[in-house]
Amino acid sequence: MSSVRLDDLSTPALVIDQDRMARNIDRMRRHLSGLGVGFRPHVKTAKSIEICRRLMPTPRGPITVSTLKEAEQFFAHGVTDVLYAVGIEPGKLPHVADLRARGCDLMVILDSVEAAADVSAFCAARRSEIPVLVEIDSDGHRGGVEPDSDTLLDVAAALTSGARCRGVMTHAGASYDCRSTDAIAAMAEQERAAVVRAAARLRAAGHDATVVSVGSTPTATFARDLAGVTEVRAGVFVFQDLVMAGLGVCAVDDIALSVLVSVIGQQREKGWIVTDGGWMAVSRDRGTAGQAVDQGYGLVRDADGRILKSLVMHGANQEHGLISRRDGGAIDWDAFRIGRRLRIVPNHACATAAQHAEYFVVEGSREVVARWERFGGW
Amino acid sequence: MSSVRLDDLSTPALVIDQDRMARNIDRMRRHLSGLGVGFRPHVKTAKSIEICRRLMPTPRGPITVSTLKEAEQFFAHGVTDVLYAVGIEPGKLPHVADLRARGCDLMVILDSVEAAADVSAFCAARRSEIPVLVEIDSDGHRGGVEPDSDTLLDVAAALTSGARCRGVMTHAGASYDCRSTDAIAAMAEQERAAVVRAAARLRAAGHDATVVSVGSTPTATFARDLAGVTEVRAGVFVFQDLVMAGLGVCAVDDIALSVLVSVIGQQREKGWIVTDGGWMAVSRDRGTAGQAVDQGYGLVRDADGRILKSLVMHGANQEHGLISRRDGGAIDWDAFRIGRRLRIVPNHACATAAQHAEYFVVEGSREVVARWERFGGW
Repeated sequence: MSSVRLDDLSTPALVIDQDRMARNIDRMRRHLSGLGVGFRPHVKTAKSIEICRRLMPTPRGPITVSTLKEAEQFFAHGVTDVLYAVGIEPGKLPHVADLRARGCDLMVILDSVEAAADVSAFCAARRSEIPVLVEIDSDGHRGGVEPDSDTLLDVAAALTSGARCRGVMTHAGASYDCRSTDAIAAMAEQERAAVVRAAARLRAAGHDATVVSVGSTPTATFARDLAGVTEVRAGVFVFQDLVMAGLGVCAVDDIALSVLVSVIGQQREKGWIVTDGGWMAVSRDRGTAGQAVDQGYGLVRDADGRILKSLVMHGANQEHGLISRRDGGAIDWDAFRIGRRLRIVPNHACATAAQHAEYFVVEGSREVVARWERFGGW
Repeated sequence: MSSVRLDDLSTPALVIDQDRMARNIDRMRRHLSGLGVGFRPHVKTAKSIEICRRLMPTPRGPITVSTLKEAEQFFAHGVTDVLYAVGIEPGKLPHVADLRARGCDLMVILDSVEAAADVSAFCAARRSEIPVLVEIDSDGHRGGVEPDSDTLLDVAAALTSGARCRGVMTHAGASYDCRSTDAIAAMAEQERAAVVRAAARLRAAGHDATVVSVGSTPTATFARDLAGVTEVRAGVFVFQDLVMAGLGVCAVDDIALSVLVSVIGQQREKGWIVTDGGWMAVSRDRGTAGQAVDQGYGLVRDADGRILKSLVMHGANQEHGLISRRDGGAIDWDAFRIGRRLRIVPNHACATAAQHAEYFVVEGSREVVARWERFGGW
């Protein structure tokens, strides 16, 4: 794509700042390496093989996925060490077994005796082998078994025939609700302690707990010690976003993802700049609504990437974005003529990226150096 | 797809109840026909040629689109009468001219002298002809020029050379905030009066106002008289959704769209059923949050389509949905075992459908009779 510039793109378009992304990846990799722990990047945010390659320790993985579609797509590119980190249900077992039969070392997770019995029955009937991590509840926010519960051992015991317990995993999603980086560090320790304790109990009962897996971008960023943990999962750090900035996980300037939009109207009496980037382009995610600073539907950069601090995208219809001044003050209308390009910095990178089928990769301020496909679906 | 049943589908999956959709289309068509007005269905909700064909008065249209991608896709299927109903900006004019040169009678909209001058300059330079509707502000909610303003005539006068004024259009998006069906009927009259007045002023000044276009699903549904209007645009009615039900536009039972999900976990102490349908599958749209009844992320149907009234999808992570009882009461856990299929009825059909690349069309309760592709992007 020689000599394509941002101004040549149709809007709305999803843009990655290559340098920012590279710094985000490097920072996380160095931090985890310093803690002496393995890295199993979560590729649900990016869903692009080009980005996956920049994240993985080796061409074969390991990676974490949130859908079997991700497993399938990345396996097609040679990635074989894959953790499907959403609780398995019987309807998906044939697909899991098929991927494994083709050479993908896919692990699944579950958090109940019922699910363990389902996987065991499937493996017995199909003479399949499926490695399993038991999901641990480290923060009460969604799923998993309590690390100190009888259920933990019951679940492991219910894994029979080809259903093989390989260890434990947890996701401290509650880290998104922490109010300080110290609180996130404490949550990281809580996350670590829960799985390490669960793994010890499994081993004491004679089960395999080779894998001890934790992860969320906030806890991965602020973990101070991960003794006993074998691998960390994190995904959104690759782009970062306003929710992460609001948590103190990154600076706004670190955010590598934005949506290029064009001004399509001015509502001068209302003080609104109207753009062609509505919620279809930036998503409906309002993840900063509950944070100290509500960033609306996103912050505004100029086409060169500089933050226009006085502005915020305050509203969205399907294909219309509304931008106004935070302080309600007067806008320099001549600076926002119809056709001008702006870039919206999103609340939640996973949600915004999901609205698009391709990334335009920018080097420096406006040079588009690559177009990378991304996929969606299940 | 003979003898495929809902239970055979991988989840999450987007499901259309064919009978409900057909009734929704028939009801709108009869209503508008009774009012003696033309129908230019908005295809931004469905983005599927199969559904487009069921909506259009003729195989060539007319239709309304929200993106040039929609214009391009439907033009490839022979649809030639197309209104692109988002304000045009200069960067999109080459694409518009190209579609027109290939035989698509594409109209654009704008609401400023500046945009009118841009289109005129483009047409003069390219010797192109582009028909234009002036967008009228009938409700103060987003864009458009005031029907009684000097700007209206200034905009029309700024359309020169091949930029041809063909009339006016408005969208009373404020109808989504109405509190009663009488209020929606009043909004429909306000919408009608605004464009009819604007059209009369344009004609008196010597401009063409052949097209007088209004539309939103609520106002289209409750309009009592559309004298002077030539065409109505509406889109979400084809599926309906919980926002429309909350407005009184439809009954919950009319909603033709749902997301098939599987139970993947039980958090008995919390009273949560966990599913594999998170916000990636149902969208982040919380459109009922501001209505009298907040429906969370959606209502719950069983796989046969019956509403399970006591339940609501109260939470969502990327690939996890959380369902609980509205009254906080005890759940019959044996009825929601891992692997059970449920269907989530969404807040906003446009947003939910946008998360998927295909529709599974169901006839009767569980027979899948078709798979229809849908597209996204710009």
